[in-house]
Amino acid sequence: MKRITIVNGPNLNLLGKREPEVYGLEDFDSYFQGLKERHPDIHLAYAQNNVEGEIINILQESAQSSDGIILNAAGYSHTSVAIADCVVAIGVPVVEVHISNIYAREEFRHHTLLSGKCAGCICGMGLEGYELAVLFFKNYA
Amino acid sequence: MKRITIVNGPNLNLLGKREPEVYGLEDFDSYFQGLKERHPDIHLAYAQNNVEGEIINILQESAQSSDGIILNAAGYSHTSVAIADCVVAIGVPVVEVHISNIYAREEFRHHTLLSGKCAGCICGMGLEGYELAVLFFKNYA
Amino acid sequence: MKRITIVNGPNLNLLGKREPEVYGLEDFDSYFQGLKERHPDIHLAYAQNNVEGEIINILQESAQSSDGIILNAAGYSHTSVAIADCVVAIGVPVVEVHISNIYAREEFRHHTLLSGKCAGCICGMGLEGYELAVLFFKNYA
Amino acid sequence: MKRITIVNGPNLNLLGKREPEVYGLEDFDSYFQGLKERHPDIHLAYAQNNVEGEIINILQESAQSSDGIILNAAGYSHTSVAIADCVVAIGVPVVEVHISNIYAREEFRHHTLLSGKCAGCICGMGLEGYELAVLFFKNYA
Amino acid sequence: MKRITIVNGPNLNLLGKREPEVYGLEDFDSYFQGLKERHPDIHLAYAQNNVEGEIINILQESAQSSDGIILNAAGYSHTSVAIADCVVAIGVPVVEVHISNIYAREEFRHHTLLSGKCAGCICGMGLEGYELAVLFFKNYA
Amino acid sequence: MKRITIVNGPNLNLLGKREPEVYGLEDFDSYFQGLKERHPDIHLAYAQNNVEGEIINILQESAQSSDGIILNAAGYSHTSVAIADCVVAIGVPVVEVHISNIYAREEFRHHTLLSGKCAGCICGMGLEGYELAVLFFKNYA
Amino acid sequence: MKRITIVNGPNLNLLGKREPEVYGLEDFDSYFQGLKERHPDIHLAYAQNNVEGEIINILQESAQSSDGIILNAAGYSHTSVAIADCVVAIGVPVVEVHISNIYAREEFRHHTLLSGKCAGCICGMGLEGYELAVLFFKNYA
Amino acid sequence: MKRITIVNGPNLNLLGKREPEVYGLEDFDSYFQGLKERHPDIHLAYAQNNVEGEIINILQESAQSSDGIILNAAGYSHTSVAIADCVVAIGVPVVEVHISNIYAREEFRHHTLLSGKCAGCICGMGLEGYELAVLFFKNYA
Amino acid sequence: MKRITIVNGPNLNLLGKREPEVYGLEDFDSYFQGLKERHPDIHLAYAQNNVEGEIINILQESAQSSDGIILNAAGYSHTSVAIADCVVAIGVPVVEVHISNIYAREEFRHHTLLSGKCAGCICGMGLEGYELAVLFFKNYA
Amino acid sequence: MKRITIVNGPNLNLLGKREPEVYGLEDFDSYFQGLKERHPDIHLAYAQNNVEGEIINILQESAQSSDGIILNAAGYSHTSVAIADCVVAIGVPVVEVHISNIYAREEFRHHTLLSGKCAGCICGMGLEGYELAVLFFKNYA
Amino acid sequence: MKRITIVNGPNLNLLGKREPEVYGLEDFDSYFQGLKERHPDIHLAYAQNNVEGEIINILQESAQSSDGIILNAAGYSHTSVAIADCVVAIGVPVVEVHISNIYAREEFRHHTLLSGKCAGCICGMGLEGYELAVLFFKNYA
Amino acid sequence: MKRITIVNGPNLNLLGKREPEVYGLEDFDSYFQGLKERHPDIHLAYAQNNVEGEIINILQESAQSSDGIILNAAGYSHTSVAIADCVVAIGVPVVEVHISNIYAREEFRHHTLLSGKCAGCICGMGLEGYELAVLFFKNYA
Repeated sequence: MKRITIVNGPNLNLLGKREPEVYGLEDFDSYFQGLKERHPDIHLAYAQNNVEGEIINILQESAQSSDGIILNAAGYSHTSVAIADCVVAIGVPVVEVHISNIYAREEFRHHTLLSGKCAGCICGMGLEGYELAVLFFKNYA
Repeated sequence: MKRITIVNGPNLNLLGKREPEVYGLEDFDSYFQGLKERHPDIHLAYAQNNVEGEIINILQESAQSSDGIILNAAGYSHTSVAIADCVVAIGVPVVEVHISNIYAREEFRHHTLLSGKCAGCICGMGLEGYELAVLFFKNYA
Repeated sequence: MKRITIVNGPNLNLLGKREPEVYGLEDFDSYFQGLKERHPDIHLAYAQNNVEGEIINILQESAQSSDGIILNAAGYSHTSVAIADCVVAIGVPVVEVHISNIYAREEFRHHTLLSGKCAGCICGMGLEGYELAVLFFKNYA
Repeated sequence: MKRITIVNGPNLNLLGKREPEVYGLEDFDSYFQGLKERHPDIHLAYAQNNVEGEIINILQESAQSSDGIILNAAGYSHTSVAIADCVVAIGVPVVEVHISNIYAREEFRHHTLLSGKCAGCICGMGLEGYELAVLFFKNYA
Repeated sequence: MKRITIVNGPNLNLLGKREPEVYGLEDFDSYFQGLKERHPDIHLAYAQNNVEGEIINILQESAQSSDGIILNAAGYSHTSVAIADCVVAIGVPVVEVHISNIYAREEFRHHTLLSGKCAGCICGMGLEGYELAVLFFKNYA
Repeated sequence: MKRITIVNGPNLNLLGKREPEVYGLEDFDSYFQGLKERHPDIHLAYAQNNVEGEIINILQESAQSSDGIILNAAGYSHTSVAIADCVVAIGVPVVEVHISNIYAREEFRHHTLLSGKCAGCICGMGLEGYELAVLFFKNYA
Repeated sequence: MKRITIVNGPNLNLLGKREPEVYGLEDFDSYFQGLKERHPDIHLAYAQNNVEGEIINILQESAQSSDGIILNAAGYSHTSVAIADCVVAIGVPVVEVHISNIYAREEFRHHTLLSGKCAGCICGMGLEGYELAVLFFKNYA
Repeated sequence: MKRITIVNGPNLNLLGKREPEVYGLEDFDSYFQGLKERHPDIHLAYAQNNVEGEIINILQESAQSSDGIILNAAGYSHTSVAIADCVVAIGVPVVEVHISNIYAREEFRHHTLLSGKCAGCICGMGLEGYELAVLFFKNYA
Repeated sequence: MKRITIVNGPNLNLLGKREPEVYGLEDFDSYFQGLKERHPDIHLAYAQNNVEGEIINILQESAQSSDGIILNAAGYSHTSVAIADCVVAIGVPVVEVHISNIYAREEFRHHTLLSGKCAGCICGMGLEGYELAVLFFKNYA
Repeated sequence: MKRITIVNGPNLNLLGKREPEVYGLEDFDSYFQGLKERHPDIHLAYAQNNVEGEIINILQESAQSSDGIILNAAGYSHTSVAIADCVVAIGVPVVEVHISNIYAREEFRHHTLLSGKCAGCICGMGLEGYELAVLFFKNYA
Repeated sequence: MKRITIVNGPNLNLLGKREPEVYGLEDFDSYFQGLKERHPDIHLAYAQNNVEGEIINILQESAQSSDGIILNAAGYSHTSVAIADCVVAIGVPVVEVHISNIYAREEFRHHTLLSGKCAGCICGMGLEGYELAVLFFKNYA
Repeated sequence: MKRITIVNGPNLNLLGKREPEVYGLEDFDSYFQGLKERHPDIHLAYAQNNVEGEIINILQESAQSSDGIILNAAGYSHTSVAIADCVVAIGVPVVEVHISNIYAREEFRHHTLLSGKCAGCICGMGLEGYELAVLFFKNYA
């Protein structure tokens, strides 16, 4: 059974509570519950953290028990060389997901340090982007 | 029945024939055939053209008979204000797809003029990116 | 009798049909009809094309039968060295027209490659800009 | 009767006296006289000043007695945030005019701070540009 | 009674102990004590942390029990998209404070990612800047 | 009795008359009247001018009869090396004030030439920013 | 017998007719006639097109029947990622030729997107540059 | 008898009173007195103004009664397209003088808009720079 | 006996386990053991952390019990103003070490925010760089 | 008999000895011998020097006895204003040659200061580039 | 008796022989002869060299026997950190001279690395600039 | 016995004589004498030159008789593509040394063209940096 870990970065714990016009009304926990129910053939894990270095810790640990990682590093995507280094170091394929279309927002969001280090990226698809990434790993290798 | 049109830009007619280390070994026609078979509940159309303006013509015409468009404008993605204007003008939701991870290649490929105008984008997923985009439209509104 | 050719670039065939808040409600054909009626003393011709190179073909051909050319190259204005070269090469005076005020829109529209090669430019005047350009040629030389 | 004010900026008082290869041989006063005679149905006013802040004073005052303003801020066009703020603040529609084609001159003239704040702009048409702007206001709203 | 929380970022726990020529001789705890005594009509809270993500945690928690937040994110002000996102997400008005005049120091301190997301900012006023921010919230709304 | 002079730059004479969504509804004269009444223990003076060089004249003169100057140079803040030089030359401490949050507006407003030369700056606090600056001088030295 | 194809881009059909001070007086057809006569041992083909995408079509087709391609993409040299991608994709060695010295003209001509993808480039040698490229292919592997 | 006018810009009226470590201890009036005494064979005039546009007025007027102009536009040197335009328009040779070495100060002082429009420039020579400029005009054709 | 603390940043806990072609095969713990044995006359301490703010905490604490600090902040070296501020604030001399030659890798690694704040830096020497830094402190005043 | 001088810059004396994958296996002396034998009707001279200023000396001297100069300034091509000035000053036509395709190597090699000052340039053709340049001079004027 | 050394850089040995429209018709030797005759009270020395490092040698040696140095480093002015370092190291005051107005020529000549390290600079004054520099040293300290 | 050559660039012959606050009081010859005495087991050679091209000559020659080279190219470090090319071409490992911390000085010193081509670099360690580099070579392969 494939093992996939979703890692969410800073402020994504507020999902569904704040700025619904940008991020929608559903909070991630209930979305994740539905995702697991729709994909009983995959072992899905989930972690969220606001601390850049803790995300690195999570990635390093998840790498030992995952066949693929889905990473939405939120604000750290645009500034963190350290997370980008981590994505390279852990060796497990990582797919970058952004809920909103970062290319249609402020200019400083148009470039992420992670995209070039990940296997690929999905953005602007809403929460559905996570599920598309899960489907990608399902049919991968 | 949902109608989705895939539009491929310059040099993608060479898919499967050239640079397999970048773009894989499958040509698009046979991939498209499989895609249609896997999704009999969707009306799928496909067009490829090397001419920037013809892609605009195709987009304008497809818009009248499609519920969603999947666009891989290849080299024009990085330079064409005219296609970007067209994406906005036609009103139909467009998803941008890139087969390779453009953020891991030459720097001039890291920015596309289309990303900010499309609903979202999927890149680095290989040909599977087209299918993920199809799945996105399936569950869209 | 002076001969003036109006050349419109990509997506301007959608005028009056799309984004009326930017480009107004009138389509160009009916506007052009009125323009000809208001200026019976001028031989007015009109062409639109979505293909960059076809615009070059049109400019080269029009140059042989026009005393002045009014050019709205739309999205190509910002990216086409080839059209800019053509404007210089054909020798006939060209006036650049933009319907909307390109300097009040996205930053990539603030610079055109054509402005420095044309005799002058008129922007932000709506469709009336074409008529002002006609009046300019009327009293020119 | 429509009221239009023309406001000229620094060094335009030298028009017709200096650099005729750039600005032509006619001085503005005699041009303005002809303009008034050709448009007896419009109330035309004119002011010139070399001082940036005085141009702001003139714009603020003219705004109370004009239906439209034609502004050639010359050298200040490229550097004055304060005049740009004033154009926004006074609410009256302003058309920017440049006698020469600023896009065909030194690079620092290719960008004006005013263009994006004005209704539109006309450049490279010689003194005739002022008359085209007058015609624009005539048929405006 | 209004509730205001002061959040200090990295190295500000060294205040009064290091670099007195830049930051003065008073440590923040004793300053905060005086501040509370001078404003008995306000509920003032205070937190300091060196970890970027913990500052996000503090901001998210404080937002639920504060009418206003005073934020000196120190070195993170110039690099943290994640804290800037948090300021937007929590909805409570935030005032940015810098003890020294960041615009008179190294160039990389001249731009903060937070300024545009906060209600306003006060800089170069020494520790007094915190009190001015408190006074601002007192008379706010 | 401390003497403080407030100097306002271009277009601030329109305060309360234009763009109330940006600058509020109160005109500066009535605000200044209230400010004086709330601070009878301070000698407050006020000057406004649209001319860059006159602001320099005012600053040079005020410096001889003020213990502190509050300067809102508006549009000149972003372009005037000459006013910045003057702030340094006059020796009297100057606090920069901006009514709106300049960092949340157009990008060309994000940098002022004055900030690094003043003692400090306060922005985004509305008219209250002037009073905070007055309070700063009250407790200064 | 070696097969070499020369591909000329936009406006080069005007060679000898326009701007002789830049491009000389000879039209390309008569030059090509002489070239063929001087090199009877080489199979020389020639195509010109103003349309970017047609140049891609020509390159793709020529690649199947040529041992080498000589490409003067004119204005597209500076803007076309799509032609650059094509040069890489077709596998046949391509030599870039420019008649004038592009490095001695406007700055936007100093960089081409093709140079790094071609085997080499020859510029500023006039029409003779084409012949030098032919000689290069003659002695090539 | 040669006529030379010295024009000083903003804040130079403070010379000798402020920042002596940068500009020295002598005020300009007494220096100018000595200069006239050392050069009785030259008609020397002098004007200072803090207003950018007034400097333009002075230059335009001086041009009619001077064989050469010595211009220290101080802070306006770095920002005034309008004064640069004026230097070109008046036709009289202008020498730019800066008392301090502007290239050894803040980076924004390293570039002046005037240098390329003047006959030449002298900087870093202290007040003596003015005298060297006078000597230059003395021996100038 | 001199006290030296080595502080390693994010992902350096993976040393010897990942990317051996870049970082070598030895893990840091065994290297550190050897280092201590080779330098019994120095009190050597070691800490590693993936969290930016925890590195600041470690630096602040180590400063109280160290005569010198050797810092390899890895990915944070290029982005952390906060660690750079900390290096200045703690007063103890810090030497920056990088195992690989950061100047021969991606461009974003060519600049570190720490280099200018440290006493010096050693890079590209492999693990040996740490020992060279130790030797530097040994002979340091 | 035409006289042509080849001038090679720094490190080209190592040709054939170092980095054969970039520069090939032939050393320049033996190549030059062959070149002279293949072109007995031309007077060919050759000089190499590692010192920038000596290359200037050689160019100045060669100019007096050459009808054309072929210059490969190697590393100095990208940095030497002084050699560029010399190319202009000596008046003799100079052709720039680079053995490798500089546009396909590191970015700092994509721009040369010499290209715009030479008659033309040939790059990426290997040692054959020198012979093409010789052929160019043969048929020149 | 004051001792002044003039040091000229690359290509200035061609003065009077090449490009007279830029540099005039007089060669430097005869100019220098006249200069010495006009200033018998000063010990004047002169050296020219095309080699950057030899100019450093000359500056180091001249420093031991000169009270002032006049340096025209020509093309090296824009690229030589090493000469700039030398100017600082030798301690003797250096005045930079340029014959032509470098600010009115190509953009890469607008910035010199030397200006900020010299006492001052004189440019655009023709050969007379050297004499003005001599006069400056005469009256210096 | 290992052979190591130290190569010093421009102005380093002044070491100990000039700017002791930057470079210390010891001249290099006496330092080198001590270095040789402390390392009798290594064959140490030393050369200094002010001429860029001579440094290339020295490097090429030293490469044939050295196991490692220690290079302090001083001012040329920041500008010399030719020396960087030489470091690559000679094949012998080179360590870059800078006496002062170049990252704490002027911004143009923060980037060297050599760092990425050398094995590693040591900076800010004073003269001791040379000895650390010697120790590095001692324990190298």
